[in-house]
Amino acid sequence: MSFNTFGKFFRFTTWGESHGPAIGCVVDGCPPNIKLNIRDIQLELNKRKPGQSKFTTQRKEDDKVEILSGTFEGKTTGTPISMIIFNKDMRSRDYKNIKDKFRPGHADYTYFKKYGIRDYRGGGRQSARETASRVAAGAIAKQVLQNIIGKKYSVIGAVTQLGILGCDTEKWNDSFITKNHLFCPDKTVLKLWEKYLLGIRKAGSSCGAIIEVRARGVPVGLGAPIYSKLDMDLASAMMSINAVKGVNIGSGMNSAQLSGEQNSDEMSQAGKKTKFKSNNAGGILGGISSGQEIIVSFAVKPTSSILSQRKTINKFGKNTSISVTGRHDPCVGIRAVPIGEAMMHCVILDHYLMNKAQCGN
Amino acid sequence: MSFNTFGKFFRFTTWGESHGPAIGCVVDGCPPNIKLNIRDIQLELNKRKPGQSKFTTQRKEDDKVEILSGTFEGKTTGTPISMIIFNKDMRSRDYKNIKDKFRPGHADYTYFKKYGIRDYRGGGRQSARETASRVAAGAIAKQVLQNIIGKKYSVIGAVTQLGILGCDTEKWNDSFITKNHLFCPDKTVLKLWEKYLLGIRKAGSSCGAIIEVRARGVPVGLGAPIYSKLDMDLASAMMSINAVKGVNIGSGMNSAQLSGEQNSDEMSQAGKKTKFKSNNAGGILGGISSGQEIIVSFAVKPTSSILSQRKTINKFGKNTSISVTGRHDPCVGIRAVPIGEAMMHCVILDHYLMNKAQCGN
Amino acid sequence: MSFNTFGKFFRFTTWGESHGPAIGCVVDGCPPNIKLNIRDIQLELNKRKPGQSKFTTQRKEDDKVEILSGTFEGKTTGTPISMIIFNKDMRSRDYKNIKDKFRPGHADYTYFKKYGIRDYRGGGRQSARETASRVAAGAIAKQVLQNIIGKKYSVIGAVTQLGILGCDTEKWNDSFITKNHLFCPDKTVLKLWEKYLLGIRKAGSSCGAIIEVRARGVPVGLGAPIYSKLDMDLASAMMSINAVKGVNIGSGMNSAQLSGEQNSDEMSQAGKKTKFKSNNAGGILGGISSGQEIIVSFAVKPTSSILSQRKTINKFGKNTSISVTGRHDPCVGIRAVPIGEAMMHCVILDHYLMNKAQCGN
Amino acid sequence: MSFNTFGKFFRFTTWGESHGPAIGCVVDGCPPNIKLNIRDIQLELNKRKPGQSKFTTQRKEDDKVEILSGTFEGKTTGTPISMIIFNKDMRSRDYKNIKDKFRPGHADYTYFKKYGIRDYRGGGRQSARETASRVAAGAIAKQVLQNIIGKKYSVIGAVTQLGILGCDTEKWNDSFITKNHLFCPDKTVLKLWEKYLLGIRKAGSSCGAIIEVRARGVPVGLGAPIYSKLDMDLASAMMSINAVKGVNIGSGMNSAQLSGEQNSDEMSQAGKKTKFKSNNAGGILGGISSGQEIIVSFAVKPTSSILSQRKTINKFGKNTSISVTGRHDPCVGIRAVPIGEAMMHCVILDHYLMNKAQCGN
Repeated sequence: MSFNTFGKFFRFTTWGESHGPAIGCVVDGCPPNIKLNIRDIQLELNKRKPGQSKFTTQRKEDDKVEILSGTFEGKTTGTPISMIIFNKDMRSRDYKNIKDKFRPGHADYTYFKKYGIRDYRGGGRQSARETASRVAAGAIAKQVLQNIIGKKYSVIGAVTQLGILGCDTEKWNDSFITKNHLFCPDKTVLKLWEKYLLGIRKAGSSCGAIIEVRARGVPVGLGAPIYSKLDMDLASAMMSINAVKGVNIGSGMNSAQLSGEQNSDEMSQAGKKTKFKSNNAGGILGGISSGQEIIVSFAVKPTSSILSQRKTINKFGKNTSISVTGRHDPCVGIRAVPIGEAMMHCVILDHYLMNKAQCGN
Repeated sequence: MSFNTFGKFFRFTTWGESHGPAIGCVVDGCPPNIKLNIRDIQLELNKRKPGQSKFTTQRKEDDKVEILSGTFEGKTTGTPISMIIFNKDMRSRDYKNIKDKFRPGHADYTYFKKYGIRDYRGGGRQSARETASRVAAGAIAKQVLQNIIGKKYSVIGAVTQLGILGCDTEKWNDSFITKNHLFCPDKTVLKLWEKYLLGIRKAGSSCGAIIEVRARGVPVGLGAPIYSKLDMDLASAMMSINAVKGVNIGSGMNSAQLSGEQNSDEMSQAGKKTKFKSNNAGGILGGISSGQEIIVSFAVKPTSSILSQRKTINKFGKNTSISVTGRHDPCVGIRAVPIGEAMMHCVILDHYLMNKAQCGN
Repeated sequence: MSFNTFGKFFRFTTWGESHGPAIGCVVDGCPPNIKLNIRDIQLELNKRKPGQSKFTTQRKEDDKVEILSGTFEGKTTGTPISMIIFNKDMRSRDYKNIKDKFRPGHADYTYFKKYGIRDYRGGGRQSARETASRVAAGAIAKQVLQNIIGKKYSVIGAVTQLGILGCDTEKWNDSFITKNHLFCPDKTVLKLWEKYLLGIRKAGSSCGAIIEVRARGVPVGLGAPIYSKLDMDLASAMMSINAVKGVNIGSGMNSAQLSGEQNSDEMSQAGKKTKFKSNNAGGILGGISSGQEIIVSFAVKPTSSILSQRKTINKFGKNTSISVTGRHDPCVGIRAVPIGEAMMHCVILDHYLMNKAQCGN
Repeated sequence: MSFNTFGKFFRFTTWGESHGPAIGCVVDGCPPNIKLNIRDIQLELNKRKPGQSKFTTQRKEDDKVEILSGTFEGKTTGTPISMIIFNKDMRSRDYKNIKDKFRPGHADYTYFKKYGIRDYRGGGRQSARETASRVAAGAIAKQVLQNIIGKKYSVIGAVTQLGILGCDTEKWNDSFITKNHLFCPDKTVLKLWEKYLLGIRKAGSSCGAIIEVRARGVPVGLGAPIYSKLDMDLASAMMSINAVKGVNIGSGMNSAQLSGEQNSDEMSQAGKKTKFKSNNAGGILGGISSGQEIIVSFAVKPTSSILSQRKTINKFGKNTSISVTGRHDPCVGIRAVPIGEAMMHCVILDHYLMNKAQCGN
């Protein structure tokens, strides 16, 4: 049972509601004697936090993380690492308007039906605010992996589709991604995307997005078939992110349309190096990493809170309607990039440790 | 750690290789006092077994299941249910040709790299033969759920895309699905599909497929946020099936292209009944079932074993090539339908029991 | 893997070192809609905290608990409950004297050998300070169980042996236990015990203790054979407490000396009530609760930190010696009473929820 | 949730009832490339099987184990190892006499109350027959550990108390243990024990026993504090064995009576070797192995099925009585020796693998 815990070996447990005093997580199973740089954890959190550009929500979140345990003289000790982020922007706003209504596309209805009670302030536990905790956990996993595997290990994510607009992933450019607010990997489309998104914002509407995350330098052999396959755990990880509705590994859903000749990645050997002619498999065969780049993409549905009036019901079973007033986020998918990266780090470290136990490698 | 176990509460552990003496599974956590009909378990297995039409592999597998424990006088006792299927068609074929080669698109390479040893006969543990065990487990889950929830609970899967050919899911017809060998839900496309598939078969090629599985009568409130969300576990379940590369919940990857107005499913109340105007969410909001139909689809890549020569390497690190001779399976996706149904049953029962513990409902 | 998590359904994860900024725990799987009284949680913590009498250590710990998440308007919401206790008495004492030495009987040596690093201040993670977190978790479990089962459910622990001095458990008196600082259940021995303990304290020595914990009002049917037996989980729970070296269920180790005639508890029926003639089984048969009082006892070894000089080695592999100066705790077992009670609550609630899922009862 | 699974990394799942067609287990997480000697597995099973001397039950069980999966060319492959033991001696005896009665001291009552149904034939799932499966799992763990650690690793168990008769554990003699049917370690008491046990047998009575299991060559550093401590898992393991009511680590319950001076094991260094002056800790400090001999003992209650008439009730809530007729087992504790050894192997391997993942050692 792991209601609020992710991972088997490198595990993190998150807690907290968007409008409680704090949120946080406990990381368990982190290897000892790893130098932790808290500034680098904070940098990952900064990538996720809202209010940074005109393209995402203007809600200010400080997202300052503190470590409460598990380190000694700057190094991990093998004991649980507790991190806390105090909630700052939880002004005592008036929730009278929405406290009894179920916002369509949100989990208001299902939480209420399941638990019979819910903290409606800002979505409570359903809020994407929870993802800050996992970004912190992922930042630790990243440092551990870079310590173990070295700098050849890296993970980078990007938005590869913004609403109805795609991009050319052949033009993927790492450094360009880090320099634009939309995590767009393709220089040639950015301007168009920006214009499109501002239009959506102005209209009070929203759009979805597809995020692609790539991991490089992952050793061959990670993944425990049959029911802890690396792709299972990655699919599970990405699907756990708020508003995600689909996950692809490599060619993903598109592989249905390929022929056998097109799909299976031919192999060849050049000296000590095994090469693959293509990477439809997304770096995973039979649930085990092949040493190729791991490629996962996932779809984030459009923000459900929009300005137009939507029909819904309230908790007394009456028909009503609802609309968002004031600031809104035209595309929640954008901020999902650092979250996807964090989940990738966590899954890979989890499997790295698992494989160590299973095969001694 | 659950290398070969699936589920948290209703759990099954599978074992066995395609060319060992037997395969099987142990189902743990099954509620007591449920009447089990072994004939119905066998019927589900029959749906999966190969050799039934000219469209799938001709390999004959008898797939006769036996129950070794966990029942008494026809009823479950709450103790583990062990099921066994003896392997019959494991003729001592000559594997000399492929024993040292890594078939592209298969897990030969990654298994060998991970474990340093592998049973190459028929794919060993990687073989899709393992899925027979989960179909048996799913058949038990189905009987339990029908016993608890009643006949309004049902799961049905279909092939909604065969290679490059789609179908109209608006024309989905349950009874038609059960009457054709391709699990095609749309009467108007079947002939075309058959012709297309026979062409692929004749050419020694293969194609992928998309499978859609629908569950009806699932109560509202199943799913344990945040890290045992119902959609996480469904994504994980489907991704565990051999050759699956992508998973969608409801509108899935396509939801990236929708606007907020199109996507979020408006709600209304009619008497005691809550209604949704649409089902882009696929019956899951915030990881919890909404009471709507649960809709999951997944892509199965084209069969990797094809007749044309493919470049690869062998375990000594030498370049070589490989091709399948004799019978082959033009679309492994077709037989994934009963497997997807089985996994759906298992996940739903798992969450049903979990919810019982968590919320007492 | 549950390095720092206890429980399967009602789970708590503890974190923190004795001399870090705080300790705490995250409780997951708590049923929703339960009224939580934070004052009652604090009362349980107060029972454990040191510095309350001349019989235990004089170290002052404030142990003030705060709830950071998981409740709304005074009720649980089904989301994780994060609790934090800030460390107050962590004066920057000089640890130079002991930082490189391995105290005999403590986990200094094994932690260092395992992790290659350790927080030596006050024992770090090994410190019994961690147990405050579980007392908090247990206090929640208690409130949940009293809410579900009612007031007939109760747990009470006592010291039944103090060093070489026993007591007559036939004279067990609940209200007397709550009124003396040694949790002694037998009025006739208290004075002797006090004198004995003061003598040990004055001599700078220490003694062990046996704690017995009794749970009443536990429903029949809790316990999941074969590998989540109620007695397994209770043994595991008690053994997890610092310095515990043995656990008995009912007659425990003593049952080896009984004859079959003496041991098995005869049954009879009086109206609707099933009666047992005796309770050698300690309320558990085949790993399942029988409805009788659950009786668990455990031995706590004598405090390892004593005033006499002890031979040991340091982390450089050199022979040396060590002794405690200043205040010491003559019997750590006494403060184990509320910890044992807390673990009992947690295990019973865990199994209560598990049984709900497994058998619907 | 692990109802019928033991272990976290090296895991085994057992299934089967005493009078079903077979029993068995699935071992998951076994490292690959380990040579498995099935004859050695059988030898361990032979130590447990009944009917071998006049001191235990005369019920004949063949206990012939077969491996159905997970090995290839004599070596483990890292995939699940399924083992099966067909039940041979399940003559269709008449159970009419006991089918509705709850035998005192047995789990008949609690199973029925929990599940509402039970297989009463020979105790069904409650039967100690299940332990054959774990002896098989333990035999695999033993071979793996001897392969990894080498021959210096060994586990040996003995009966150290038989009913009211103790022995001198200072006289513990490994080779003597293997040569007598009572697993008695002390040559000087065997004759007395035999006479005593024959007397009990003749009287139709029974007695309990204490078993002590010692593991040598266990590396320092195994055990994951705080909630997967090595002693927690050992206590849990031993408590899972049928009829066990108490578990000690090292001095165990007796440590309550020691003084701090007597109890804590002083350390010294001699060259590269760390030495302990005594072993009250039983080789475990803070839940982590210290490199000393691991010493666990546990009490087995007297056989509940005896020849004298016992009062009880039946499933209809009526008072009745019961007695065993024909052959009976005067001391079930004796056959617990190989079971305790098996559990020791399993726990140590589990923690060995865990530590590999956690600390890379």
